[in-house]
Amino acid sequence: MRLSPLGNRKFIQANRLEFYFGGTELNVGLSLANFGDNVKHITCISDDFIGDTAMAYMNKFDLDTTAVVRSKRPLGAYFLEVGAVMRPSNISYNRSHSAFSEINPSMVNWKNALENGTWFHWTGITPALTQGTFDTLREGLKLASKKGMQVSSDPTYRNGLWKYGAEPKDALTELLSYSTIFIGGINEMNEVLGTTCGSSNEEFIEASKVLMEKFPRILKVFDKIRTSINASWHKIRARMWNGEEFYETQDFDITHVVDRIGTGDAFAAGLIHGLQRFDDIKAMNFASAACALKHTYMGDVNYATVNEVNTLLEGNISGRFNR
Amino acid sequence: MRLSPLGNRKFIQANRLEFYFGGTELNVGLSLANFGDNVKHITCISDDFIGDTAMAYMNKFDLDTTAVVRSKRPLGAYFLEVGAVMRPSNISYNRSHSAFSEINPSMVNWKNALENGTWFHWTGITPALTQGTFDTLREGLKLASKKGMQVSSDPTYRNGLWKYGAEPKDALTELLSYSTIFIGGINEMNEVLGTTCGSSNEEFIEASKVLMEKFPRILKVFDKIRTSINASWHKIRARMWNGEEFYETQDFDITHVVDRIGTGDAFAAGLIHGLQRFDDIKAMNFASAACALKHTYMGDVNYATVNEVNTLLEGNISGRFNR
Amino acid sequence: MRLSPLGNRKFIQANRLEFYFGGTELNVGLSLANFGDNVKHITCISDDFIGDTAMAYMNKFDLDTTAVVRSKRPLGAYFLEVGAVMRPSNISYNRSHSAFSEINPSMVNWKNALENGTWFHWTGITPALTQGTFDTLREGLKLASKKGMQVSSDPTYRNGLWKYGAEPKDALTELLSYSTIFIGGINEMNEVLGTTCGSSNEEFIEASKVLMEKFPRILKVFDKIRTSINASWHKIRARMWNGEEFYETQDFDITHVVDRIGTGDAFAAGLIHGLQRFDDIKAMNFASAACALKHTYMGDVNYATVNEVNTLLEGNISGRFNR
Amino acid sequence: MRLSPLGNRKFIQANRLEFYFGGTELNVGLSLANFGDNVKHITCISDDFIGDTAMAYMNKFDLDTTAVVRSKRPLGAYFLEVGAVMRPSNISYNRSHSAFSEINPSMVNWKNALENGTWFHWTGITPALTQGTFDTLREGLKLASKKGMQVSSDPTYRNGLWKYGAEPKDALTELLSYSTIFIGGINEMNEVLGTTCGSSNEEFIEASKVLMEKFPRILKVFDKIRTSINASWHKIRARMWNGEEFYETQDFDITHVVDRIGTGDAFAAGLIHGLQRFDDIKAMNFASAACALKHTYMGDVNYATVNEVNTLLEGNISGRFNR
Amino acid sequence: MRLSPLGNRKFIQANRLEFYFGGTELNVGLSLANFGDNVKHITCISDDFIGDTAMAYMNKFDLDTTAVVRSKRPLGAYFLEVGAVMRPSNISYNRSHSAFSEINPSMVNWKNALENGTWFHWTGITPALTQGTFDTLREGLKLASKKGMQVSSDPTYRNGLWKYGAEPKDALTELLSYSTIFIGGINEMNEVLGTTCGSSNEEFIEASKVLMEKFPRILKVFDKIRTSINASWHKIRARMWNGEEFYETQDFDITHVVDRIGTGDAFAAGLIHGLQRFDDIKAMNFASAACALKHTYMGDVNYATVNEVNTLLEGNISGRFNR
Amino acid sequence: MRLSPLGNRKFIQANRLEFYFGGTELNVGLSLANFGDNVKHITCISDDFIGDTAMAYMNKFDLDTTAVVRSKRPLGAYFLEVGAVMRPSNISYNRSHSAFSEINPSMVNWKNALENGTWFHWTGITPALTQGTFDTLREGLKLASKKGMQVSSDPTYRNGLWKYGAEPKDALTELLSYSTIFIGGINEMNEVLGTTCGSSNEEFIEASKVLMEKFPRILKVFDKIRTSINASWHKIRARMWNGEEFYETQDFDITHVVDRIGTGDAFAAGLIHGLQRFDDIKAMNFASAACALKHTYMGDVNYATVNEVNTLLEGNISGRFNR
Repeated sequence: MRLSPLGNRKFIQANRLEFYFGGTELNVGLSLANFGDNVKHITCISDDFIGDTAMAYMNKFDLDTTAVVRSKRPLGAYFLEVGAVMRPSNISYNRSHSAFSEINPSMVNWKNALENGTWFHWTGITPALTQGTFDTLREGLKLASKKGMQVSSDPTYRNGLWKYGAEPKDALTELLSYSTIFIGGINEMNEVLGTTCGSSNEEFIEASKVLMEKFPRILKVFDKIRTSINASWHKIRARMWNGEEFYETQDFDITHVVDRIGTGDAFAAGLIHGLQRFDDIKAMNFASAACALKHTYMGDVNYATVNEVNTLLEGNISGRFNR
Repeated sequence: MRLSPLGNRKFIQANRLEFYFGGTELNVGLSLANFGDNVKHITCISDDFIGDTAMAYMNKFDLDTTAVVRSKRPLGAYFLEVGAVMRPSNISYNRSHSAFSEINPSMVNWKNALENGTWFHWTGITPALTQGTFDTLREGLKLASKKGMQVSSDPTYRNGLWKYGAEPKDALTELLSYSTIFIGGINEMNEVLGTTCGSSNEEFIEASKVLMEKFPRILKVFDKIRTSINASWHKIRARMWNGEEFYETQDFDITHVVDRIGTGDAFAAGLIHGLQRFDDIKAMNFASAACALKHTYMGDVNYATVNEVNTLLEGNISGRFNR
Repeated sequence: MRLSPLGNRKFIQANRLEFYFGGTELNVGLSLANFGDNVKHITCISDDFIGDTAMAYMNKFDLDTTAVVRSKRPLGAYFLEVGAVMRPSNISYNRSHSAFSEINPSMVNWKNALENGTWFHWTGITPALTQGTFDTLREGLKLASKKGMQVSSDPTYRNGLWKYGAEPKDALTELLSYSTIFIGGINEMNEVLGTTCGSSNEEFIEASKVLMEKFPRILKVFDKIRTSINASWHKIRARMWNGEEFYETQDFDITHVVDRIGTGDAFAAGLIHGLQRFDDIKAMNFASAACALKHTYMGDVNYATVNEVNTLLEGNISGRFNR
Repeated sequence: MRLSPLGNRKFIQANRLEFYFGGTELNVGLSLANFGDNVKHITCISDDFIGDTAMAYMNKFDLDTTAVVRSKRPLGAYFLEVGAVMRPSNISYNRSHSAFSEINPSMVNWKNALENGTWFHWTGITPALTQGTFDTLREGLKLASKKGMQVSSDPTYRNGLWKYGAEPKDALTELLSYSTIFIGGINEMNEVLGTTCGSSNEEFIEASKVLMEKFPRILKVFDKIRTSINASWHKIRARMWNGEEFYETQDFDITHVVDRIGTGDAFAAGLIHGLQRFDDIKAMNFASAACALKHTYMGDVNYATVNEVNTLLEGNISGRFNR
Repeated sequence: MRLSPLGNRKFIQANRLEFYFGGTELNVGLSLANFGDNVKHITCISDDFIGDTAMAYMNKFDLDTTAVVRSKRPLGAYFLEVGAVMRPSNISYNRSHSAFSEINPSMVNWKNALENGTWFHWTGITPALTQGTFDTLREGLKLASKKGMQVSSDPTYRNGLWKYGAEPKDALTELLSYSTIFIGGINEMNEVLGTTCGSSNEEFIEASKVLMEKFPRILKVFDKIRTSINASWHKIRARMWNGEEFYETQDFDITHVVDRIGTGDAFAAGLIHGLQRFDDIKAMNFASAACALKHTYMGDVNYATVNEVNTLLEGNISGRFNR
Repeated sequence: MRLSPLGNRKFIQANRLEFYFGGTELNVGLSLANFGDNVKHITCISDDFIGDTAMAYMNKFDLDTTAVVRSKRPLGAYFLEVGAVMRPSNISYNRSHSAFSEINPSMVNWKNALENGTWFHWTGITPALTQGTFDTLREGLKLASKKGMQVSSDPTYRNGLWKYGAEPKDALTELLSYSTIFIGGINEMNEVLGTTCGSSNEEFIEASKVLMEKFPRILKVFDKIRTSINASWHKIRARMWNGEEFYETQDFDITHVVDRIGTGDAFAAGLIHGLQRFDDIKAMNFASAACALKHTYMGDVNYATVNEVNTLLEGNISGRFNR
């Protein structure tokens, strides 16, 4: 649950908030649902009217919520002050004892949850929270891997997390061993490989090769690159190494950022959608355009449809009306 | 009636809307009223509290509403999702059986309505709706022409309309035969002339000449050109051919578009105001500045006064305070 | 789609609206969904972003939307000015050419739609709109009756409707012939029977008997009685005749009405839920309490859960906190 | 200009305000305009964008604003904290040097302003502000009286005003000498007559007789009586003495007051409308119902139409829908 | 931190929230600050921008915040759905690992905190949360008692709390042994004494006597009695036993409850203010009126000033304007 | 008190306002308070609930309000229409008879007010209002100078003020004679010196030298330079002459201005904070960064903390999240 004052006010200026439900994996799921894909979200939320509201929020997007677990703990929340121009956004989390943080493997029936599933997506936020979230995710990943599902990984490394005792490198190494697609940049590869590569394309390819050597199931590496002129003006491009080809997209110039939260998740969702339908380059282009469009929506969710992403890919960026 | 969520939210994100009254001809009228000109609006609106509210809205701007007809049909409405950056805006219309769509010539007393009038403005939206709107407009145009009124035409061609059976080219040809000023670009001229001219200045002049030959009452052609970097950043300039001179204005760089709806109408209103007071070039400059300013107001209406347009024309674009 | 200014403002005082989706049958469905029941809604909505938003709205409540048809016509809408104290509410409809009004039997696959269904609910608004809505409903009713489903009827008679040529009495008579439960008062019975009974309990029983004689499948008659002190203060009670017993509930005293729209639908939903689980009297008490609670929610929907209705039935009306 | 936080918040709880334009005489005028009567408002407002907004507000209701004077002084404003239940509302004025307070007789062309006028209404607020407002009003009253216009007076006595030096009793005495209708209660009569009558009907008649003796042009006295259970629940009735008959209306029970400001003005407007069309008793009943309805609208203005007042007079207080 | 949708919407209907800071002891402190009294609040809040906002909120009311401790844990929050009529309000807490819940005695310098203090107020919520909150409070109470401060106790017993292992009866017994004023009803006395008294005045006096015998420092018992017609309409009165006199106030009839949260705290604050200035009866009357007024303010805080409470005590409940 | 419609609406489009408290000196004070500095604000505000709200607003930021005087006059207010792109903002003042305008020296106890003070800041708005504001300020300046306090002056010259009779040049000359820091540009220096210097760096240095000669106590001159691309896009830099060094900062490019009001005050506050802690160049850099950040906050107040300014100074302008 994300709570933030309207516009780019600070909490001290406000007495009204807007709320959304989000979270990196949910954002990916909702974006895919908006593409018309069948998505099941596996999580644990509170068993109160806040949790009911979250449930309704997921149903609204036609997300499959049958594997959602409810618990007596409150729903995790974060407070957001949206920045502007050279003022960064501020986030304050209240999730350390949330329903999701206190999940444990006994609470999820992975066998049922993954039935008929073909693709499994996870991010590095989940294993970074608690032993319980790590263990639960590991169980799921094991089963997904065993069932031969594609496993996309977005191991977003964020210091400030990983407080419960696990060593990020070791934990991520185990989880990546079940993965087939790596979504992340030099930072994440350095963290996992213990290397200190730079961010040039050459080093990106080099690091990707090392990564694929260490994790032989990983066949493709995708990296989204953001250039921030300031908090209100970004540029987005992506690059990839799939073992054979390197490719880099053009920049999308996002001159008036509406909301940057969830843009990485929109990229991941674009990839997951695209890789099931297109070749790698087209999938990455689709993902970049999806990511760019996400910057134009308030909230964590990418509302763009497949049609809307394609229209942008065809070069229609002038924002004419759809009547 | 325009209904849209606040900010650039989509309907699916919203439960509150903001509403305005607008429509291309009304926008022109309100802009002229804000210039202090005497304007009479001729239309048909619903005979319910929505129509009452529209009536009050027009009165608020001191528009002459004595020729407005009321009917049992609902007021036409459209729903708008405002885009941002590379996301286009979406519009969904609900007007096919509206009070205005079901107008017919017997409902308007044109003789009274045009009494003391000197200028008649129409756009291509009206004849594109139904046989009744076409017929009613034709009646008015005939009388206006007979009375020797100036007739400005903005035949905005929009496919998606013209569903009731009339052939756009034929219908517009008849209506343009009563007109003295043409406001439109290459697209509109091609549609009316059946030509396929390009958009260069040379071709614009050429097409204008052909147009004036076909419609000898038309003495001046004005064209507003929009360059969209994206949905949030536009540039505006204008050009004209008055049978003798070609002239093109400088660009106005609208770096942060607030609302682009009604900007073409603001241009038309600027021309109508200007051509009654200034030479053609000054009138077009006035119209361009008015059009540029409209991009800074929420809603369909251009609130700029003559003073404010002139201040901009004098080069004051730095946005200092008026205290 | 219901559009109304915030609070009890008039449109002329407002520039912001709140919107909800509703409609008598949808309200019944959503209330049942909030009771946790499985409900499928059969309707026709627009194939645009407004329709998408309506779809999301229904999904949010976990309503089965698989039988919803989409069409090119706009979604029906109504504008509402909420009254207060001695000021009545005003409604202006824009639905005469809506997606739903222009439905016809060829658009609904009733066989699929009713598969596994056990209860069919209809109201008198649907057959009152157009020949198409009447015909479509009749098709469904025939099949429902053939399948032996329970059929609850809320023939709400509203003059101002029934403009398309059908004779209300004849049309309702045909539709009621497929029905098993009658929800309505003396007005509706008089309309259908051509009688002029008064509203006393005795006459209610008498009229019910006549009704059951004429429509032998109808086994139970339920009537909700509203006493309005003014627009802000109502009392609600209900009575029934099931061929054997007459019963009348106590009054619920709704001293501060929040929103009375959809309260009749909440009563119907309470009955449909209750009659499948409880005896007639308990079902009617449940329905009355549900109806009373609906007056406390903004919008058309009754958000009350089964637990909340039961708590009220147990006499807890003091509004203490649920912590 | 009235500025108040939304709902019944205090300023210290708020950062948003709602604004309306009002003032006792304007309220009377707008209410009459909503009855469809021709009304001209004579005042002085600021020559800035606030004044422009006030102007547009009056035009919106189709009030004749041709006699409005503009000045360099700011528009008068008041801040309002709306009370609830046993909490009274708080008002803080900022009008002592406003455009209106600094009006003087040289600014108003009464001859033009009163042309074709048949009724003149004034209240005791105007002469209580400054010598300039007193003098300007006196000029108008003299001319109105000379032209034989009906003059209704609402001398609302409010201590806290009358700070500029004039003696209220003397000033009001002069102004009442031009008046033909007196709207006010025992307090006002005591103030003007120097008496100490009680509020019983007998004493009301007695005081009215004394008043008519002192002011022989006054032919009718109307008194609106408010019984406040608390700030949220009022009862309203009215009584009159027209030299021959005493009459007292029934109570209107306003169980949920929305906004009580301007309710006295709605009564005055109801009288002015009614006395030009009905007998005294019907006029007073009309005025009472209008006053009661005003309690249901936010803001200073009574939006009730003649139809709506009549519907209430016919006893329809149950607040059923107008569809 | 209290988060609730506007009006009486449920979370599932809303995407906007209003937030306030509150909590039983803070409410008492802020109410006293609004009476103009010097108050120091001792608590632990989060060391982030939410905590900064809470700090600013307390400073705004001129509360002494020098003894507030900051910690890395998030601020406790609760979500509130405001009920209406027969619908109760719902509360969901998120405070079990909040900054305040994880306070411990080592974090508060009681010696400094209580310097120059003469009155100490505590409630039963604090000791019910965790061992740390209990221990910290006990430390403070011991010192307050040793310094001879007045100690008012509002042991509000709420099942659903007291989960950390302590036995409520034992814990409260220890804390009450340091107290001089008891604010609470039969429920609280039964809980502490292990009795099962009824709620009649006789039993109240009896129970009070037993209480005073067990806790000889307690000299006065005050009880606020709420009669809820429904969630929107309450009556409030109070009674007391001071060892010598029994006294019961009149009812305040709160016909339109705005917000009932914090009304008990307003009563306590009224007592604390009153007992330092008036005799017991006047203090209780003052407290009752303060409590009644609190029902008219949104949020947890009683904004009433001493003047406003006195005005109500003088019988002015008609809600006339303060100009 | 600043009152403006939400977003960049005009008053004629709005019925809701947002309000803030501000004023050039208060803005400086609040910005310093947000830096954690001890600040006392000396002013006169109204003795009503608006003044109470202003008082609470200042307390909220922990400003020392003990020297604030209250009077019976209303609080000064201004109405603001926020511009966009090439549309300038409009301001309309209502302050000519405000509490502050009618201050006079007898109302301020300067001896107490300045006790323990080390820095005095004044601006040219205060002496421009009335003889009373001028006299009161002069008294304070005299004492501050006598006590050896640093005196920073921001003599912002604004024609449209200075209507009460004083000659700006003479008045400012007297006040500057007590000053030690001059914050202002060529315009201000020309006004005070009677010169006509241009805006080049060379002329700036020259003018500064002349100024320092005329006002020997002034040791440093700081000038903030704004380049406005339009109302929504500004660039900010600063330059200084301290008798020895000239220095000019880099540009801050503010591509999406949120609110430019109070940005000059943020610069002044940055200087006052910086000059007490850093060398002149670092102080000016700090002030520029503070000024740039102010453009990102709604309202008059700069909410930036010292940390946030320093982060920007270190070159972090990409607007990444602070988690």
